[in-house]
Amino acid sequence: MIKVKIVSRQQQRYVQLLTNAQLPQLEITEDPQQATVLLADPPLIAPHLAKYPHLQWLQSTYAGIDTLISPEIRQNYQLTNIRGIFGSLIAEYIVGHIINHQRHFPRYKAQQQLSHWQSHPYQSMVGKTMVIIGTGTIGQHLAKVGAVFGCHIIGVNRSGITVSTDFQQTYAITALNTALTQADYVISTLPATTDTNDLFDQDNFSHCKNMLFFNVGRGNAVNEQGLLMALEQQHIAHAFIDVFKIEPPTPDHPFWHHPKITITPHIAAESFPEQVFTIFKANYLRFQQQQKLNYLIDFKRGY
Amino acid sequence: MIKVKIVSRQQQRYVQLLTNAQLPQLEITEDPQQATVLLADPPLIAPHLAKYPHLQWLQSTYAGIDTLISPEIRQNYQLTNIRGIFGSLIAEYIVGHIINHQRHFPRYKAQQQLSHWQSHPYQSMVGKTMVIIGTGTIGQHLAKVGAVFGCHIIGVNRSGITVSTDFQQTYAITALNTALTQADYVISTLPATTDTNDLFDQDNFSHCKNMLFFNVGRGNAVNEQGLLMALEQQHIAHAFIDVFKIEPPTPDHPFWHHPKITITPHIAAESFPEQVFTIFKANYLRFQQQQKLNYLIDFKRGY
Repeated sequence: MIKVKIVSRQQQRYVQLLTNAQLPQLEITEDPQQATVLLADPPLIAPHLAKYPHLQWLQSTYAGIDTLISPEIRQNYQLTNIRGIFGSLIAEYIVGHIINHQRHFPRYKAQQQLSHWQSHPYQSMVGKTMVIIGTGTIGQHLAKVGAVFGCHIIGVNRSGITVSTDFQQTYAITALNTALTQADYVISTLPATTDTNDLFDQDNFSHCKNMLFFNVGRGNAVNEQGLLMALEQQHIAHAFIDVFKIEPPTPDHPFWHHPKITITPHIAAESFPEQVFTIFKANYLRFQQQQKLNYLIDFKRGY
Repeated sequence: MIKVKIVSRQQQRYVQLLTNAQLPQLEITEDPQQATVLLADPPLIAPHLAKYPHLQWLQSTYAGIDTLISPEIRQNYQLTNIRGIFGSLIAEYIVGHIINHQRHFPRYKAQQQLSHWQSHPYQSMVGKTMVIIGTGTIGQHLAKVGAVFGCHIIGVNRSGITVSTDFQQTYAITALNTALTQADYVISTLPATTDTNDLFDQDNFSHCKNMLFFNVGRGNAVNEQGLLMALEQQHIAHAFIDVFKIEPPTPDHPFWHHPKITITPHIAAESFPEQVFTIFKANYLRFQQQQKLNYLIDFKRGY
């Protein structure tokens, strides 16, 4: 038997899905000593990995596995994450906020409460330039959606190589500022690696002009003081921040009450258990048959 | 010389655009007696058409020309409207409101004011069924956008003939209820004609289940009492109403303070003067050269 332990905020839902699926040779266990497989939320399992002497494979329920790849934590097991299911969710988050902001939805809501009928000039997405930092599956999906709304799409990645036809230009990360100069919207989809720490700092932001900034990747990429300064100097018109260096941010964090910052509690692309489970199930069958797992993480690269 | 009079809420902007364009043989006039061409907002010009003895052509600044086609008003001139520029704006309005609603943006905004970090389960657009009533340029653009968000797209039009590959099915208007039964989202893009009066009434709505309803066409298509009943009986989860039979609705209109109705002041696709002017300019050159005008209205059909 292959003994699987679940460690998740959605514990009950996963137990139910696993029970219903009746996977071959699978037994759910509560005992870390016995488990060879973990289906787990990275931040919940990270502090406890040492208690699993027989761990062979951990299927992350998140795309972001940064809490599991720091060099101090054990790496003698196979780590897989989930991919490919977040593109639509992230695109909804980005496009929804752009439209909500540009087309004054909160203002019309306030007017409605006063029975007040008054239109206001607005901006459309047509002809705007969207700069997407990170051109993986999420960035590619966002490019496709942005293009259908009439945006000019610029990608930024390590190599500068264009990965899909929805990107009209692609710059290497070393030319980030050339891309930022042209941006109406800037979206960071970057994973947390040491390369991306404080990538968006006051200096880089200073190349922007009145753009909308989104961080839906990981919090480490943004220098928070730099962001505040960029808002003050109108390099950024409004920032939408879904991820922080420390989550949740402390109650006295200056972003909470900033009129030009929208905070959301890490929901741009929350995992749906059903979708995660589909990936787990396919991987479990590969594991059981000793095949190579899907979405394996390279601990050294960090993704 | 061809004498053109402008009658618009955006008067100054159009005068400026017309002056800058230096169109051949064109003279701006203030005198209705002299004008042969009008560039006008339909509701502003409708009561005054009798004062223009030499009117040959009226270019509407709106797509909706219903205020000009009632049989009591003169029809002995060429009427053209604007088309093709609204698809993106309408799609932004629809998608923006769907996401705003499904992904709890107002709730997160309220939480932010309390420095409160708490996520809530949500629905994605992926796999939802969008029923688009009216498959003209606006409906077609919306279908393309809905498809890229993973929606199943159903069209409804007079003939039942599928007009683009983004529609996975198309029903004739006589089979409207078959389409409504399947809908998560219903969007009316219908122009105001006598055929569409009160099309959405209590009976038709009763075939829906918990759907999001949008009227971005014309107000005549919705029976307001029927809509209220459908909300009460959960055939509709939330209604987004941009157009009314009488605009603005009176301060005591029951929609203003209904918790499941979002009112916007006819802004789903407000004309941008620059875009309208591009259409006017092309048409003016055709008029001057006695060619057939673009976007001519058939007074009898009403579109």
